[in-house]
Amino acid sequence: METVPVLNDITTALGRITGYIHRTPVLTSAQINNITGCNLWFKCENFQKVGAFKFRGGINAVLRLSAEELSRGVITHSSGNFAAALALAASIAGAKAYIVMPENSPVAKRNAVAGYGAEITLCKPTLEAREETTNAIIRDKGSVFIHPYDNFDVICGQGTCGYELISDYPEIDTVVVPVGGGGLISGIVTAVKGINPAVRVIGAEPAGAGDAAESFRTGNYIPAHKPSTIADGLLTTLSPFTYRIIRKRVDDIITVSEESIIESMRLIWERMKIVVEPSGAVPLAVVLENRELFSDGITGLIVSGGNVDLGRLPF
Amino acid sequence: METVPVLNDITTALGRITGYIHRTPVLTSAQINNITGCNLWFKCENFQKVGAFKFRGGINAVLRLSAEELSRGVITHSSGNFAAALALAASIAGAKAYIVMPENSPVAKRNAVAGYGAEITLCKPTLEAREETTNAIIRDKGSVFIHPYDNFDVICGQGTCGYELISDYPEIDTVVVPVGGGGLISGIVTAVKGINPAVRVIGAEPAGAGDAAESFRTGNYIPAHKPSTIADGLLTTLSPFTYRIIRKRVDDIITVSEESIIESMRLIWERMKIVVEPSGAVPLAVVLENRELFSDGITGLIVSGGNVDLGRLPF
Repeated sequence: METVPVLNDITTALGRITGYIHRTPVLTSAQINNITGCNLWFKCENFQKVGAFKFRGGINAVLRLSAEELSRGVITHSSGNFAAALALAASIAGAKAYIVMPENSPVAKRNAVAGYGAEITLCKPTLEAREETTNAIIRDKGSVFIHPYDNFDVICGQGTCGYELISDYPEIDTVVVPVGGGGLISGIVTAVKGINPAVRVIGAEPAGAGDAAESFRTGNYIPAHKPSTIADGLLTTLSPFTYRIIRKRVDDIITVSEESIIESMRLIWERMKIVVEPSGAVPLAVVLENRELFSDGITGLIVSGGNVDLGRLPF
Repeated sequence: METVPVLNDITTALGRITGYIHRTPVLTSAQINNITGCNLWFKCENFQKVGAFKFRGGINAVLRLSAEELSRGVITHSSGNFAAALALAASIAGAKAYIVMPENSPVAKRNAVAGYGAEITLCKPTLEAREETTNAIIRDKGSVFIHPYDNFDVICGQGTCGYELISDYPEIDTVVVPVGGGGLISGIVTAVKGINPAVRVIGAEPAGAGDAAESFRTGNYIPAHKPSTIADGLLTTLSPFTYRIIRKRVDDIITVSEESIIESMRLIWERMKIVVEPSGAVPLAVVLENRELFSDGITGLIVSGGNVDLGRLPF
């Protein structure tokens, strides 16, 4: 994959997926503004279909496929939100979805994926097992592999979230985005800087899964090594492609503690009355730990998703 | 209190409090519609100031007071959302608020009330102790007592929620409202039937606190006797005044099990990604237990509030 996306790719994607996605609301909280001393606007992708921004990229990638490709079905490996996103996108396009999930993935997530009509194949919870299982299905079925983030069309779909935010609220001058595999921030920085290069775009990463921050700081692509964080959506590692986009366009990546993530999640639940998953609270954690960086102007925070196991909350 | 409110009282209240309240959003969920086979629209008072509809009534009652009355301060007894609502309303009006709370009320709720600048007096957790303590403060300070629901202006304020719902969405033909002390449904039925008498208004009550349903069914005002339910906002009993309005105007009151309330709360959290308190999930529980009553047309459900102790969830 060589071509780096530009603003026009994002607006084309938005035109393609409008009608399939929710244009999610932007909420504010006077109480959280008081607590932080900042002016924070929350882009609520927890209200997106399947409960996370991932559906934007999934549906964009599927809608780009030819009828012949769709007839062979699509396949991905994911334990999280992209599995549900691709399953729903495929069912909308009338295509079969094959989802490879680790055998220790939560039953609730498996049920959600199965509920969209996808065929689930369980594998051992290692990257090698995931890839082997996926490749075996591709050889057998000829299905089209859609990577959760190392994919041009997926990145462009995710970027539509940032496009909506800045075109709806051009007064925003900083955007803080969770960083896992880097697909979301790659798309958002392309959209945001494409509209207005003066807007700061800052990545938010758990210190326990800080590969993107380390790669960004050192200027060398360093894959994650044994990442550990409650923000399960951010355990993934940058790809060389997302690293390249981030390194070129993003202003900074800031890491935060697990305590700040849990505190931020609780603040959002208690004060805003919305359900966010730990990953979606990481941008607020960056603000809480670095208030002075956000005390001027208006900061947009990407609430990336709201899929949590209510039986296993950290509070 | 003799005069029963009419539609004009609600619209007057709305004019008075607009600018102080949030016009709360109405949300839908394709997933919950699929599960129930009904077309449900949720009026989200969990996004109201102080996290519950109670602020509508509190601010309306306070804004009705004269400068002389405001100078003496306001007082109520409440362990729940009305305490915070009156505290915030008083602070907006520049008046002192005295709040009598039972000594076993959660520290989080006390902190919220104190955070709005109110003066809290703790008392034993009995109705007698509450009233004695309240009366002692009234004798001492001359402050104006605002009952949480047995109050004309409070009822008119709560009714603005129903007015917003039906004027924004006139295609709704049934509204389901939680019933505790009856202030919310008294106001809402006045607004809704005032706009369109053909709209059904149905009360939703936990079976474990079913005094309103019993009074409604028998035609005799029967106060609650040892109510018990997870829906802590609905432990209160109708007043003779709210009973009279309900008996005259409401179409039916339906009781539900604790299991249905918890299931409904979980559905709303998981599928809609919003935080609702048990009381706010009781209308959905009525739909879940009586789907056939709501399978035609469009049903509006009042999500009355979102204040929960995240450390003590029922799932």
